[in-house]
Amino acid sequence: MHISGIYTDQYQLTMGQAYFLKGDGEKTAVFDYFFRKLPFKGGYAIFSGLEVVLKILEHFRYDDSDIAFLKQQGFDSRYIAYLKDFRFKGSIYSTLEGDIIFPNCPVLTVEATIIEAQLIETLLLNMLNFQTLIATKASRSRQSASNRVLIDFGMRRAHGPAAHFASRAAFIGGFNATSNVMAAKDFDIPVSGTMAHSFVQSFDDELEAFRFFAEVRSQDCILLVDTYSTLKSGLPNAIIVAKQMECKGQKLKGIRLDSGDLAYLAKQARKMLDEAGLQYVQIAVSNQLDEFVIKSLLEQDAPIDIFGVGTSLVTGKPDAALDGVYKLAFAYGKPRIKLSENTTKITLPFKKQVHRLYDSNHKMLGADLITLWEEKEISEMYHPVDSKKNIAFNNCKAEELLQLVMKNGKRTSPPKSVADIASYSSKRLNMLPEEYKRFDNPHIYKVGLSKLLHEKREELMASYKMV
Amino acid sequence: MHISGIYTDQYQLTMGQAYFLKGDGEKTAVFDYFFRKLPFKGGYAIFSGLEVVLKILEHFRYDDSDIAFLKQQGFDSRYIAYLKDFRFKGSIYSTLEGDIIFPNCPVLTVEATIIEAQLIETLLLNMLNFQTLIATKASRSRQSASNRVLIDFGMRRAHGPAAHFASRAAFIGGFNATSNVMAAKDFDIPVSGTMAHSFVQSFDDELEAFRFFAEVRSQDCILLVDTYSTLKSGLPNAIIVAKQMECKGQKLKGIRLDSGDLAYLAKQARKMLDEAGLQYVQIAVSNQLDEFVIKSLLEQDAPIDIFGVGTSLVTGKPDAALDGVYKLAFAYGKPRIKLSENTTKITLPFKKQVHRLYDSNHKMLGADLITLWEEKEISEMYHPVDSKKNIAFNNCKAEELLQLVMKNGKRTSPPKSVADIASYSSKRLNMLPEEYKRFDNPHIYKVGLSKLLHEKREELMASYKMV
Repeated sequence: MHISGIYTDQYQLTMGQAYFLKGDGEKTAVFDYFFRKLPFKGGYAIFSGLEVVLKILEHFRYDDSDIAFLKQQGFDSRYIAYLKDFRFKGSIYSTLEGDIIFPNCPVLTVEATIIEAQLIETLLLNMLNFQTLIATKASRSRQSASNRVLIDFGMRRAHGPAAHFASRAAFIGGFNATSNVMAAKDFDIPVSGTMAHSFVQSFDDELEAFRFFAEVRSQDCILLVDTYSTLKSGLPNAIIVAKQMECKGQKLKGIRLDSGDLAYLAKQARKMLDEAGLQYVQIAVSNQLDEFVIKSLLEQDAPIDIFGVGTSLVTGKPDAALDGVYKLAFAYGKPRIKLSENTTKITLPFKKQVHRLYDSNHKMLGADLITLWEEKEISEMYHPVDSKKNIAFNNCKAEELLQLVMKNGKRTSPPKSVADIASYSSKRLNMLPEEYKRFDNPHIYKVGLSKLLHEKREELMASYKMV
Repeated sequence: MHISGIYTDQYQLTMGQAYFLKGDGEKTAVFDYFFRKLPFKGGYAIFSGLEVVLKILEHFRYDDSDIAFLKQQGFDSRYIAYLKDFRFKGSIYSTLEGDIIFPNCPVLTVEATIIEAQLIETLLLNMLNFQTLIATKASRSRQSASNRVLIDFGMRRAHGPAAHFASRAAFIGGFNATSNVMAAKDFDIPVSGTMAHSFVQSFDDELEAFRFFAEVRSQDCILLVDTYSTLKSGLPNAIIVAKQMECKGQKLKGIRLDSGDLAYLAKQARKMLDEAGLQYVQIAVSNQLDEFVIKSLLEQDAPIDIFGVGTSLVTGKPDAALDGVYKLAFAYGKPRIKLSENTTKITLPFKKQVHRLYDSNHKMLGADLITLWEEKEISEMYHPVDSKKNIAFNNCKAEELLQLVMKNGKRTSPPKSVADIASYSSKRLNMLPEEYKRFDNPHIYKVGLSKLLHEKREELMASYKMV
C-alpha cells in the first residue's frame, strides 16, 4: 500500500467538495491537533510521527486510480479536476518531534485553505495518535529499565503494517534496537535478533543446535535456553558452547529466557554462568514484558541485561489509542468554537502559541501557557475550565513550542533522523522533574490560558448561548 | 512502504542463514499457525487475513535495496545470493478465510523448505493475528446490532496504516461499510461518511451549514446535530432542512448524534422527527461505541438505525492483539515438539488435519478433531492436555478444514473478493449454535486429538524426558 490522497475518511472529501462548491474553499482556516487524556495514566506523552507526516504531505497527491475511484463515487467533476492538481500548500506550526507534550494543549496547528486542512486531517490523526501512543509507552519502559538494553520484539503482534511505525516510535521513546528489519533499514535503527524455539527443535538435540548456531554466528550469539528445560538442559548446554567458543578466542554474547519465572531463572542463570567463569555472558529476557514487569524484575534484583519487549509496546496496551483530535479554531476571518455540555470539551478558538515556562534558573515550572498567537507578555495563567483558578508568574522565562515546520507545503528545514529525534526526546525528558514521571498518581503538569485568550473565549461562548 | 522480503524479524534471516550454511535448508519442514486464547473472552474467532498473505507471498522478494542492506548487516555472501533469487515455493494448507476458528487448533499449516517456512513466519503472524482480532471484534458488534447498519469509523484512531486492513477485517466480520476511502477502493467495500463538527463551525450559523450541505449533497445527506445544542438547535435546524428538501422532492437520509446520552437523545430525536412527519429520517450514532454499548442502547429501545464504530473496533480493544503463534511440527523427516512446564503450551508434532464434526443432521457438534494428516476414521477425541478425558463419536460427519490453498508458491484458486469472504463468514457463523456466541461465559467449543495423534505425541514427549 502506498499512501496517497485517498488515505482519508470519506467525509473529508465530501466536506471538501462542499467548501469547493461554496466557492470560498480557498479561504484560510486554522485547525489544532491536541489530545485530551494522557495515555497509561502517566504524567506526560512523547510527541511522535511529525517527520513521517511532513514527508507524506510533501508528496500528497490523488493519483489516476484515485481520481477514477472518486469519479465512480459521484463527486462533482469540477471538484475532481481540483483534486487532480491538489498539492498541500499550507503551513504547519508544530511542537518538535520527540518533545514532551500534555493534554488539552495544541501540539500542532495547521494553517491552510479550509479544503486543504480538511483533506489532511485523517492522515495527521492516524499517524500522530498512534506514534505518540507508542513513543510514550516506550518511554515508560525506559523509565523502568534505567540504562539496560531494550529491544523491540513486537512485529508479530503489531497491527499489521503498523509495526513499521511502532518500531520507529519505540526508538524515539528510548529503545535501543528493533527486531523489525524493514523498520531498521528505512529508519536507520540498530537491528537485533536471537533464535527461535523452532531452530532448537529442528535439531535432534539442543547442544547440537547451539553448537551449530555459535559456529555460523559467533558474533552477537545469543542462545535461547528454554526449549526443553532451562536449568537442566538449556543452560548447561549453553555453558558447554560458551567454553568451546572461548577455545576459539570467541565470546558468547548471551542467553535468552522466554518462559517461566524470569526473576528466579535469571538469578539461577547468573549463578551458573558465573560459576563457569562466564561473567561476561549477558542475560536477555522476553515474554509478555511491559514497564511494570521490567520494574518488578529489577526491584527483585534480577540480574538482567537485555529486555525484549513485544505486544504491549507495539500495541500500546492497555490503552490501544491516543484520543487525539483536530479542531477548527479559526475560519473565514473569524474565531470558531465547538460547544459541549461537557465543559472540558469546549474548544479553544483563534490561532494560538504555546509557551513552556521555566524559572529564572531555567528549571521547568511544570506549566504550558496557551496564548493568542501574537501575545508576547507572560504574566498569568487561567485554568481552561474553572476560571476562578489562576496563577501569576514572576520572572519566568518562556519558550515557544509551536514552530513553523512547513510553509507553503514545503518543510522549513531538512528531515531529521530518527536517532536525532530520539536524542532530542531524551534531552527534553531529562528536563522534566521526576514527580511527573512516576507511574502512580504522577504530578499533574499544568496547561492554562492567557488572560486575553480566556476572555475572548468567554465572549465567543456567550455569543452562542445568546442565540 | 512496500512489503518485501525484509518485512520480518531479524532472527528469521539469521536462522535462515544457519540452515543455509548447514547445507540442508532445502529439506521439508511443517509449521502450524494457531492461537491459544480466544479474544474478548468470547466463544469463537473469525479467521481473517489469508487472502492478503497469499497475495503478498506470490510476490515475496528481496529487492536490490534489501540485498544491499543485508550485505551491510554482514550476512554471508552465498546466503545473500540465495536470497536474491528467493521465491516462496512451498505449500499452504489453510482454513478458509472468514471461517470460525478456535484455540489450540491448527488454523493454517505451512509445508516448505525450512528456510522458506522461517522467512515467511513474521509476515504470517503479523497479518493473521491482527486481521483475525479485528474480524472477531467486528463480529461481536454484528451480534449486538442484529440487522442494523454498522459503519467502521476508526481510521483516525487506528494504528497508522493498520487502518487499511482493519477496515477489510471489519467488513469480513459483518460491518456494512467503512469511512476509509483507500480501503473501500482497494477492497471494494461500500464507503460512507457524514460531516464533522468543523463543517458546522466554519459557518456563522448551524442552519446555514445544514442548508448548504443538503444542497451540495442531497443524496445520502446525514446532518451532525450536536455541535452547539442537540435538542435546542441541531434537531430543529435539521428538521427545517428536511422540510425544505421535501419541497424539492428530496429526502434527508439521517441525523447523527456524537455526544451525550445516546439512548435519551435518540428517543427525543425520533419523537421530534416523527412529529414533523419525518419518519423516514434515520438516526445514526457514534462516540466510543463497542459491542456492549450497542447491546445496551438497543436493550433500552433506543430507535437507532446506524452505528458508527471507531476506536474499539479498529484497535481490537481491550485485547490489543491475538496471541497467534507459529510452531514447528515436523522437520528433516522427524516429528518435532516444544516442551514446556506449562502443559497447555506443549506443541502438536506431525503434519495434521483438522476435522469439524457434525451430527447426522448436519448440525455442528461443537468439536474440531485434530488428527494425523493421513488418518481418515473419526471415532474418538482426546483432551489435548488431560488424557483421561475423551469422547467417543458415533455416526458423525466430518469436514476437513485445512485445504490446499497454495502449492509450489502458487494459489490453487483465484483470489476471493472481500464481499465473498464476508458472506462465507456469515454463513459459517450461522451454523454455530447461539450458546457459543453470547458475551458472558460462552459455551466452550471442544478441540481435541485423535487417539493416534495423542499416542504419538506422548511417545515423543517421553523420548525427551528420558534424555
